[in-house]
Amino acid sequence: MFERFPEGFHALIQGASRGIGLACVRRLLDEPSVGRVFATARRPDRSEGLQALAEAHPERLITVPLDVTDESSIDDAAAAVGARSERLHLLFNVAGLLHDDSDLKPEKRLADVRLDNLERSFRVNAFGPLLVARAFERLLTHREHAVLANMSARVGSIGDNGLGGWYAYRGAKAAQNMFTRGLAVELARRSRQLVCVALHPGTTDTGLSAPFQSRVPEGKLFSTEYTVEQLFQVISGLGPEDSGSFLAWDGKPIPW
Amino acid sequence: MFERFPEGFHALIQGASRGIGLACVRRLLDEPSVGRVFATARRPDRSEGLQALAEAHPERLITVPLDVTDESSIDDAAAAVGARSERLHLLFNVAGLLHDDSDLKPEKRLADVRLDNLERSFRVNAFGPLLVARAFERLLTHREHAVLANMSARVGSIGDNGLGGWYAYRGAKAAQNMFTRGLAVELARRSRQLVCVALHPGTTDTGLSAPFQSRVPEGKLFSTEYTVEQLFQVISGLGPEDSGSFLAWDGKPIPW
Repeated sequence: MFERFPEGFHALIQGASRGIGLACVRRLLDEPSVGRVFATARRPDRSEGLQALAEAHPERLITVPLDVTDESSIDDAAAAVGARSERLHLLFNVAGLLHDDSDLKPEKRLADVRLDNLERSFRVNAFGPLLVARAFERLLTHREHAVLANMSARVGSIGDNGLGGWYAYRGAKAAQNMFTRGLAVELARRSRQLVCVALHPGTTDTGLSAPFQSRVPEGKLFSTEYTVEQLFQVISGLGPEDSGSFLAWDGKPIPW
Repeated sequence: MFERFPEGFHALIQGASRGIGLACVRRLLDEPSVGRVFATARRPDRSEGLQALAEAHPERLITVPLDVTDESSIDDAAAAVGARSERLHLLFNVAGLLHDDSDLKPEKRLADVRLDNLERSFRVNAFGPLLVARAFERLLTHREHAVLANMSARVGSIGDNGLGGWYAYRGAKAAQNMFTRGLAVELARRSRQLVCVALHPGTTDTGLSAPFQSRVPEGKLFSTEYTVEQLFQVISGLGPEDSGSFLAWDGKPIPW
């Protein structure tokens, strides 16, 4: 795995406190070719999973506070990472928001749409990854192979939307897909080695999918470990020609 | 024109103070088959164009205050229209925001992206049209032919984005396209007669395009009158089978 990346490469997982993000960090630390892993979370000190990994890998894992809804927090995190590393080879925006403890949940119908929920969803799922890309651009555009991956979702495919509903989450992922495409176009001018992609993880056993898992057919709910293995296989196979694409966990393209 | 609409039908133009929206109102009033036109603007009393039309057509034109960034203003407008009309047959969300007097302008590059500009762009270009659809749903879902049109833009096509930049505007139009698609799916369950579409007007001689008109090839900058004629031709030709599509001023489909 990660054959195209330079030996001892540096990776950053944004949204690493739990779920797929935490599993990404764990998997990267298992890989001898990975030199350093930056793991961001709003409050890294409150993630037991991250803390346990940091104790086991004090040299290779660095936790960094980053609130994806806060522009200055993102810029501070980029400065902190930049002080420890001259370049990143993998940046994966994993943090996502589908529901929370307040009244944010996927809208069953148009009447359920609320402006404040739209704004919260878009801040985490669309604006945040773009602001992270802005802050880390300098560390990603260099002469070595690098990947900027944004966690998208098949429900963010406009062409594939045959069910309706879920306005905030679907709309935010569609906007994020547009941003990923724009980043691929723009950043190719600064580094031909940087690949920007949108990835669909498949339905994974995390807090995000928990309220909806009963609808998932038997055997189709992925463990975080399985999802991460698949996504890292996809990421490992990427070359510059793939930049600007929207790919599922099995490597198959998804329509915009 | 408007052959599929019932005689004396009711239309609403959201964003009618100037530009394409104002030209839509003027064209509708020229059409004898149009019974009533509701024209919304943040401040209808400040639009000389609207005021002149209202004086000339006191029976058929009704101006309604509506601020597309304000949820309660949208709901109040829907109540005001509902008090005057039992059903709408055409609702066209025209208001759009590409630049303003503050520092909002299309980003030339990633470094120009700002969170507050993303939020302002999305409020007008994406969230507003969806909240308008929510507020007016009851007036649009009936047993007669009706069209809900959202003003999109070719730069909102993800698949067609080969230039990059313009993150806020492109992303907001992509999100709006997702919303239009979701509305088409959901509202078809309530009214088979309602067609929901995203429309690209072509580059038109308005305040929105003014800073960018020097790049437009000779003869390719449309007058508002020409654009409205083309868009109303497209709208006139729509049937239920077109719901959920993204069409240019010449009726040709645009990829998501």
